[in-house]
Amino acid sequence: MPKTSRAAVIPEPNAPVEIREFEIPELKPGAALLKVANAGVCGTDVHLWHGKLAGVPYPLIPGHEMVGTVEAIGPKKIRNVDGHEIKVGDRVTIHDVTKTCYSCWFCLIAKAPTKCPNREVYGITMDSTKWPHLIGAYSEYVYVTPGTHVIQIPDHVSFDGAGAVGCAMPTAVHTVIRSPLKWGSNVAIQGAGPVGLMLLALAKINGASTITSIDMESHRLKLAEKFGATHTLNIRETSLKERHDFLREITNGHGPDIVYEATGNALAVPEGVELVREGGTYTICGQYTDSGTVEMNPHLMNRKHLDIRTVWGSETTHVYQAVRTIADNYDEFPFEDVVTHKFLLDQTQEALETQERHESVKAVISPND
Amino acid sequence: MPKTSRAAVIPEPNAPVEIREFEIPELKPGAALLKVANAGVCGTDVHLWHGKLAGVPYPLIPGHEMVGTVEAIGPKKIRNVDGHEIKVGDRVTIHDVTKTCYSCWFCLIAKAPTKCPNREVYGITMDSTKWPHLIGAYSEYVYVTPGTHVIQIPDHVSFDGAGAVGCAMPTAVHTVIRSPLKWGSNVAIQGAGPVGLMLLALAKINGASTITSIDMESHRLKLAEKFGATHTLNIRETSLKERHDFLREITNGHGPDIVYEATGNALAVPEGVELVREGGTYTICGQYTDSGTVEMNPHLMNRKHLDIRTVWGSETTHVYQAVRTIADNYDEFPFEDVVTHKFLLDQTQEALETQERHESVKAVISPND
Amino acid sequence: MPKTSRAAVIPEPNAPVEIREFEIPELKPGAALLKVANAGVCGTDVHLWHGKLAGVPYPLIPGHEMVGTVEAIGPKKIRNVDGHEIKVGDRVTIHDVTKTCYSCWFCLIAKAPTKCPNREVYGITMDSTKWPHLIGAYSEYVYVTPGTHVIQIPDHVSFDGAGAVGCAMPTAVHTVIRSPLKWGSNVAIQGAGPVGLMLLALAKINGASTITSIDMESHRLKLAEKFGATHTLNIRETSLKERHDFLREITNGHGPDIVYEATGNALAVPEGVELVREGGTYTICGQYTDSGTVEMNPHLMNRKHLDIRTVWGSETTHVYQAVRTIADNYDEFPFEDVVTHKFLLDQTQEALETQERHESVKAVISPND
Amino acid sequence: MPKTSRAAVIPEPNAPVEIREFEIPELKPGAALLKVANAGVCGTDVHLWHGKLAGVPYPLIPGHEMVGTVEAIGPKKIRNVDGHEIKVGDRVTIHDVTKTCYSCWFCLIAKAPTKCPNREVYGITMDSTKWPHLIGAYSEYVYVTPGTHVIQIPDHVSFDGAGAVGCAMPTAVHTVIRSPLKWGSNVAIQGAGPVGLMLLALAKINGASTITSIDMESHRLKLAEKFGATHTLNIRETSLKERHDFLREITNGHGPDIVYEATGNALAVPEGVELVREGGTYTICGQYTDSGTVEMNPHLMNRKHLDIRTVWGSETTHVYQAVRTIADNYDEFPFEDVVTHKFLLDQTQEALETQERHESVKAVISPND
Repeated sequence: MPKTSRAAVIPEPNAPVEIREFEIPELKPGAALLKVANAGVCGTDVHLWHGKLAGVPYPLIPGHEMVGTVEAIGPKKIRNVDGHEIKVGDRVTIHDVTKTCYSCWFCLIAKAPTKCPNREVYGITMDSTKWPHLIGAYSEYVYVTPGTHVIQIPDHVSFDGAGAVGCAMPTAVHTVIRSPLKWGSNVAIQGAGPVGLMLLALAKINGASTITSIDMESHRLKLAEKFGATHTLNIRETSLKERHDFLREITNGHGPDIVYEATGNALAVPEGVELVREGGTYTICGQYTDSGTVEMNPHLMNRKHLDIRTVWGSETTHVYQAVRTIADNYDEFPFEDVVTHKFLLDQTQEALETQERHESVKAVISPND
Repeated sequence: MPKTSRAAVIPEPNAPVEIREFEIPELKPGAALLKVANAGVCGTDVHLWHGKLAGVPYPLIPGHEMVGTVEAIGPKKIRNVDGHEIKVGDRVTIHDVTKTCYSCWFCLIAKAPTKCPNREVYGITMDSTKWPHLIGAYSEYVYVTPGTHVIQIPDHVSFDGAGAVGCAMPTAVHTVIRSPLKWGSNVAIQGAGPVGLMLLALAKINGASTITSIDMESHRLKLAEKFGATHTLNIRETSLKERHDFLREITNGHGPDIVYEATGNALAVPEGVELVREGGTYTICGQYTDSGTVEMNPHLMNRKHLDIRTVWGSETTHVYQAVRTIADNYDEFPFEDVVTHKFLLDQTQEALETQERHESVKAVISPND
Repeated sequence: MPKTSRAAVIPEPNAPVEIREFEIPELKPGAALLKVANAGVCGTDVHLWHGKLAGVPYPLIPGHEMVGTVEAIGPKKIRNVDGHEIKVGDRVTIHDVTKTCYSCWFCLIAKAPTKCPNREVYGITMDSTKWPHLIGAYSEYVYVTPGTHVIQIPDHVSFDGAGAVGCAMPTAVHTVIRSPLKWGSNVAIQGAGPVGLMLLALAKINGASTITSIDMESHRLKLAEKFGATHTLNIRETSLKERHDFLREITNGHGPDIVYEATGNALAVPEGVELVREGGTYTICGQYTDSGTVEMNPHLMNRKHLDIRTVWGSETTHVYQAVRTIADNYDEFPFEDVVTHKFLLDQTQEALETQERHESVKAVISPND
Repeated sequence: MPKTSRAAVIPEPNAPVEIREFEIPELKPGAALLKVANAGVCGTDVHLWHGKLAGVPYPLIPGHEMVGTVEAIGPKKIRNVDGHEIKVGDRVTIHDVTKTCYSCWFCLIAKAPTKCPNREVYGITMDSTKWPHLIGAYSEYVYVTPGTHVIQIPDHVSFDGAGAVGCAMPTAVHTVIRSPLKWGSNVAIQGAGPVGLMLLALAKINGASTITSIDMESHRLKLAEKFGATHTLNIRETSLKERHDFLREITNGHGPDIVYEATGNALAVPEGVELVREGGTYTICGQYTDSGTVEMNPHLMNRKHLDIRTVWGSETTHVYQAVRTIADNYDEFPFEDVVTHKFLLDQTQEALETQERHESVKAVISPND
């Protein structure tokens, strides 16, 4: 077992990222050590760098998306949700949310475990100054705490291909489960970043009839076509009215049954209400950061007789289904192509800046390369 | 059978209401003639007077809410949805929406019949200059067209007591069906007008645990208590923060599982998003008129992991269930007290003005008194 | 317009089929005349021949499944559910159930229109001795009554390919809608006749993970593989325990999430309860004829914490979705191969006997060949 | 803290119950000691005495239903699901199922935690020969293991009144949640034992329209009327046809929307299929013991277009809601009257025999009296 691990650290909001060395702590029963192959650079990580999330402890080792190899296991067997043992050498990802308590009102009574107040997220809420320190993915090694759900990646899926897991595919899985998607549905998806692309794949896998991807970047829309978009709309080249009318033209005049929002842009939300058909469903999963208010028309919402569902966080089942979905459909979609930029650990600062400029679809850091 | 009927007519938007006399047309097969006991004065009627709804034909006989007695039946038996014959002398109400086609995409495929483009509404969309003319409730007699669903009112329910039918109770029924209301739910209801009061009654009948009524009129809140409100909040006497905190205080810190909106005030909608608990349901049925946009925060919507359902119009089943609900629970709620003001047909202008000033809870016009 | 039409008639139960000539009646407003290309021979038709259904009027022109060409339209335009006009020469199918009233308790209140007591079925409940006589598909021409829903078949779909419509695909659509099928589901389907094959196609289109087809005929199981079965089980070659264990082996030990029954064999039902996983869903659509009781264990049903859904009849939306599904996925599945036997009208007797011996998957009669 | 506890022990199947004395073990962190006020005698306990359940360890201290007082708490605070501390002296019940893992496929993926293979049930699956021994309710004291959910009983609810908790009310809560019960529903309930009575109360609380209780004991049916039955049917005095017809007579000809089964008698299940209306829901929760097969007609099931739901076990949320429901509706229902027989610990044998003869509705043992 290695003795030390290099990790990227955000010392405080907006300060340059530093690479620091940490001692690897002894593994307690139920714990494991993960050798990180790829750590995903999520838009949230850029927000963390700028200190935009409340309650985050600095200095912080960021990174909640990770795939890699089990380097060591503590003095107790650990098992996946199917009851199979996790072994040293297994290629795995983890559910980045841990300590969901299944004892509180949200977990047991409201059945909304993503609102459990006890949960902790690797690379976001856990304090690198305290034991076991190595709890962010921008690191050679991550200490996988007891109770964290570990999910094996099948051999035929590369680490890059599994990179769509991270938080994009589980978020998309959760979002689809909250919507009435079924075969024959007409779907529009706002945003062709990682979450939007995974929503595209899921819409196609579920037999959607038309799937329109909406984004402002033509390189993303090209990737969207590879992920099953039957149509694309560039918001730099079309007006809202044109998008609205186009969606009716391809759907017998009705408009999309379901619109998924995966943009991070608050203005997308009133547009989504416009785009969805009467009696349809609008599902919002991309408003993870507070970017203020927008103007919305309650009469329009009411008149259209809508279901509007919002989706927060992910449960272990969504990560489990995400991995299965990628594995089962690996030949059908170019999952590896989502990873457009790769960085070394020493390039973490550059990785964050690239992500901030929206140049990448998904950037990853490979701390052991 | 009578030969003529006096009816109130709005000659054109904002013009004074006139009383005109119409010939009663011969009844076609499937038609009936209703002698109106009470015509409800709905907020929509005030909007019609001011010309705020698009596509309404003037001169208009307003009135879509009506209870009365079957005066005559055309040369064909008519039946209620249970298959029982409707007879002369029966005390009845009607589903004010007729001609729902059950042949179009909305009716058959989308299963959203309240969005059927073929439907017509008594007193709103039907043209009094064309045969059969008498198709608004502000009239001594209404020509009940073939295919209109007629629903008998049990003997123990007075016409005033049935006045809560009209569009308030069916709207409330439809709204509750679109929400996960069940026993033990903590509920808040924005607005204590007729729809809000009927939502209160339904919340109580369904075994809700706490039911908080929110309004700006203390006389309405007093009536709300009689309709089952366990708590009331006057928005003139409390701040949003106080309302938010009060609702948490009475619900173990969580907030209401369901918030119903029945106000007609666009500002209620962002407030509802604030009030509902995380993972809860916000159901909007009161935004029937376009009163412009309001500021909403998409991040707050998303973070709270909500279901937001909007409710448009009513189906025959909602009117059927409305009548049954009032009849089954007639001793439990003071349905007659909802009718706070009664007018003669000649006082129609005054009735509309009273409604406009929010002095009444429910005003009715009794054209045959 | 043709003057007469030859049609096959079952004079009385178990009597030999006769070919008789009928005058083609004048088309009333809303009616159309269909020139039949293919009439499907359904298992129900064999039961009709043997007089096993109650309330059927003899002499009977059988045939409720039909595709063909619009030969003539009465003195009124007719439209499809999307509002588009149906024209002479259009290639179409019809919803074989007509006169669903959308006025009764089942249609409007219970929202179970397939239980509407007013509905009539072509070739089953309608009396050929009464006007308009030509209301069964085993005929050169069928009188399409006003109100019957007519659905166009896209040009790229052949009449044989559309033959899977009939009642198989609509039944399968209705059945899938009554089940929680979604991507990644493990599915088992009892029966590989037309309904079972269409369920296979729908399971595949919806992204099911494993799909096991169970039948006793190896030629049907071979076709099942072409329709998406990932595994097949021949009940002549395996024991119930072997089928049970095999389904667990391929599903991580759990068993199928959903089992669909499409056999017509009462013994399939207790087996389905055995096969489905704990907490799973068993959906039954194949028990259309009364073949008596079977032994079932209520404790087993209870202990497994199941949803058991049964599915009766089809609505227009299911036929509409059936045609769309076949058209949208025409290149993916060999729909034409379902039609294994074709007969002339004069061979109707032989067609029924072939169907009775289970030699065909789907036999069709082509009355105009 | 007391040193020892007397407890009733079933030495082996069918052997006479013995009273033995056990040392009370030291409380580990998270554990508590419950001083039992009432232990419910459940029908399952009689089956345990006769050795009818597989995998039960003997000698056994039976009893999974218990209310009492917290005598002591181990060296760590324990909290209820609302996050409030449990204190010495609190009057409480517990969720008798513990160790639900929330880590396995059933808990996390299938979301069917009552099928979790890791769960243990007080008084049924836990071995009294092993530490901490005192894990059945027929005992002066019960060792409440860490992780067991403890629920406080409000002051206005007596221990006898809370006796309806135990497993009857949680089972009824779970069953109702699995059914589409809402205001106005017509309901029939097979069985008027504790579970049937609690289903009656829940049907009434949720605003059901007609509620018919069916049993063979007139003393139970009398109690059923106090719990909200609008009608009763004694199966000793009526034929199946009479029950079927009566239920149609009181429901406008349709039959009950929902039939709940809570009998423990396998023959009730085919009868329930007969009684429920077409398109209705049949919910089965009383078939906890294997009593063999019965004859059922799959065609009847299919033709009626049913939802049949079975319900196994209960989750913490059902116990939580059970206590709330009893507390919120304590004045409306005679919960204390469900306890018809009370026994001392030394009378355990007699208590089981009384229960076996169906003389009691609910018998309880008060070990500290």
